[in-house]
Amino acid sequence: MPVAPAPTGSESPHAALIELLSIRGMGPRRLDSLLSHFDSPRQALDAPRDEWQRAGLPVGLTQSRPDPERSAAIRDWLDADPTHHLVARGEPGFPDALNDLPDAPAALFARGRLAALREPQVAMVGSRTPTTGGRQNARAFARHLAGQGLGITSGLALGVDGEAHRGALDTQGTTIAVLGSGIDRLYPPEHAELAEQIVAAGGLILSEWLPGTEPRRGHFPRRNRLISGLASGVLVVEASIQSGSLITARLAGEQGRDVFAIPGSIHNPLARGCHRLIRQGAKLVETGQDVLEELAPTLRRQLEAIDTPPESASPTGKPAPTKRDPEQERILELLGHDPQSADTLIEASGLTAGEVSSILLMLELAGEVSTLPGGLYVRTSQTVGSA
Amino acid sequence: MPVAPAPTGSESPHAALIELLSIRGMGPRRLDSLLSHFDSPRQALDAPRDEWQRAGLPVGLTQSRPDPERSAAIRDWLDADPTHHLVARGEPGFPDALNDLPDAPAALFARGRLAALREPQVAMVGSRTPTTGGRQNARAFARHLAGQGLGITSGLALGVDGEAHRGALDTQGTTIAVLGSGIDRLYPPEHAELAEQIVAAGGLILSEWLPGTEPRRGHFPRRNRLISGLASGVLVVEASIQSGSLITARLAGEQGRDVFAIPGSIHNPLARGCHRLIRQGAKLVETGQDVLEELAPTLRRQLEAIDTPPESASPTGKPAPTKRDPEQERILELLGHDPQSADTLIEASGLTAGEVSSILLMLELAGEVSTLPGGLYVRTSQTVGSA
Repeated sequence: MPVAPAPTGSESPHAALIELLSIRGMGPRRLDSLLSHFDSPRQALDAPRDEWQRAGLPVGLTQSRPDPERSAAIRDWLDADPTHHLVARGEPGFPDALNDLPDAPAALFARGRLAALREPQVAMVGSRTPTTGGRQNARAFARHLAGQGLGITSGLALGVDGEAHRGALDTQGTTIAVLGSGIDRLYPPEHAELAEQIVAAGGLILSEWLPGTEPRRGHFPRRNRLISGLASGVLVVEASIQSGSLITARLAGEQGRDVFAIPGSIHNPLARGCHRLIRQGAKLVETGQDVLEELAPTLRRQLEAIDTPPESASPTGKPAPTKRDPEQERILELLGHDPQSADTLIEASGLTAGEVSSILLMLELAGEVSTLPGGLYVRTSQTVGSA
Repeated sequence: MPVAPAPTGSESPHAALIELLSIRGMGPRRLDSLLSHFDSPRQALDAPRDEWQRAGLPVGLTQSRPDPERSAAIRDWLDADPTHHLVARGEPGFPDALNDLPDAPAALFARGRLAALREPQVAMVGSRTPTTGGRQNARAFARHLAGQGLGITSGLALGVDGEAHRGALDTQGTTIAVLGSGIDRLYPPEHAELAEQIVAAGGLILSEWLPGTEPRRGHFPRRNRLISGLASGVLVVEASIQSGSLITARLAGEQGRDVFAIPGSIHNPLARGCHRLIRQGAKLVETGQDVLEELAPTLRRQLEAIDTPPESASPTGKPAPTKRDPEQERILELLGHDPQSADTLIEASGLTAGEVSSILLMLELAGEVSTLPGGLYVRTSQTVGSA
């Protein structure tokens, strides 16, 4: 049976990618091999199958064809709601942070506000069965960090993960939940409502598995590397010596991310994992502010890497202003030269609380905005953008 | 009035030193300057006073004379009990560890078993008002470490110090209390009985101040540097950010001693000092065993520095046996080639439990003795000393 000719011109930008994703046995690693070998999903899909073998795919898989039922299911999910997204590596929406990973996913399914992916994040992980104190710490740290404009990235699991997401929501902050199952198979079921709250508050649910994929033990290590990969640092709240959180922390270290751990009583078995990490070089933190202070240099470096220096140096000899994105410009304009509260800026900009906090944090790290007592913000630079 | 001629020949070895100590205004630092300048206390005492000025002493002091009442008081204290000692720098009983200090004391008053000074020690310090948990940790760590043959050095203060001494006594171990007052002015009074127990158990009370000196705030920093200086490492159990224990820890670091700290809840203000130390590089420890394992390389290095290598290498090519002191030889002989319990060795040797534990620890670190399950000890080397 001849292969149907590839549709031309007007096809949806993800049509070929969806076909590839629908092939049974085409896991994230194999798809990545394929897309590294070819110039585009379309070219990979249309290539003769012996070329797939040269791309490193097993012979069995080269004889597989796209599964029309599965590709229809992906399309149906994407069409079902405007908050449903598929974002492929190389696209503008794909998080830069993941491009650095040796095993970056080829594509991500996302539900919610996609821009959250590109905002500064800190990951929080820990025991599924924390102590009451650990639970309280998770929520309080998340609340503080999200209140300061950092997104809170975690895994939607019971225990520390759930409290981390909730802490961010407490302060109307952004939080991202990365799943070890298909994006439409929320796990654990106890957290289905929490997931809806995350999306409603301008956060994001994320998965690299096809819609319909059930959670499997083997998925979680890959999921964990996304949690640490998305974030500038990973905070371990409470973890036993056997905890998977220590694996996430190890991955984070290998990825060059900062690792933070909260100490506890030597008689609390769930402090042992944190203590081990501290002995191995993780930073001991007592407050959310400690995390923020430790992360500040990393966040500043990330800002500098993003900002392209302008062609000519500033004639005043002062550091030349760096490029800002349109929303940063907008907030700077709204700030004017009088101190403003975040609430005023939220109302005037029409952005979410999470977005405004995040922009203010980035501007503060860039030295363009200072905080005043009473939660007011003021411009420090005299360089008025488009005003 | 002519100065009386110096007694010759048969004078007590400390007679001149006691005269010098009795001079009003002759504090430990000045005495040290004087004794560094002259060859002996006798030479210093007999020298013309303008030579004292060249040794760096203030003019006022050069006109002071030994105080007969004070020197008599020192002699009376020394004569009152065979456990009362004065040990001067350069004498065999003076601890090597203190010779390294830039401001080593010229002489120490000691009450108890003087040999305890030359046994391996770990210092334990912390809050005078610890939490119940901190109190329990202090005692449990001391019990474990003393049970393994390490002396526990502390400051006889209320709180952590007291519990550290008591933990050592629990296991019949050696403990050393360094005072910030004269050796006969036990402070605080609540711990007078504890001090007696320390001496009775083969431990030591130590002071660099003259008998009769009242405790003064200004003495404690000097006292603290002796506590850390005597030990191979300093363990901080619980301490606030303002605690003097952090000063002891800093001194310990400057003296090249290992610093250990016990973590705790981030909501416990007395864990904050420990957390600060850990962030500054102190080793986080959860058990006494952690301390022992971290100290082992340091203790081994100290052993190697003490042991002089023999003139010729062993003909077998094995590492040549190092020199052992007579008591180590005795314990090795008593061990023979069958496993023995510490109790058997204590009984057979006539040494104290603390001495036997300490010797076994040193032999174990030197690789000559191994521990077996059930608290038995066995020789690992086949080199039978004088047997």
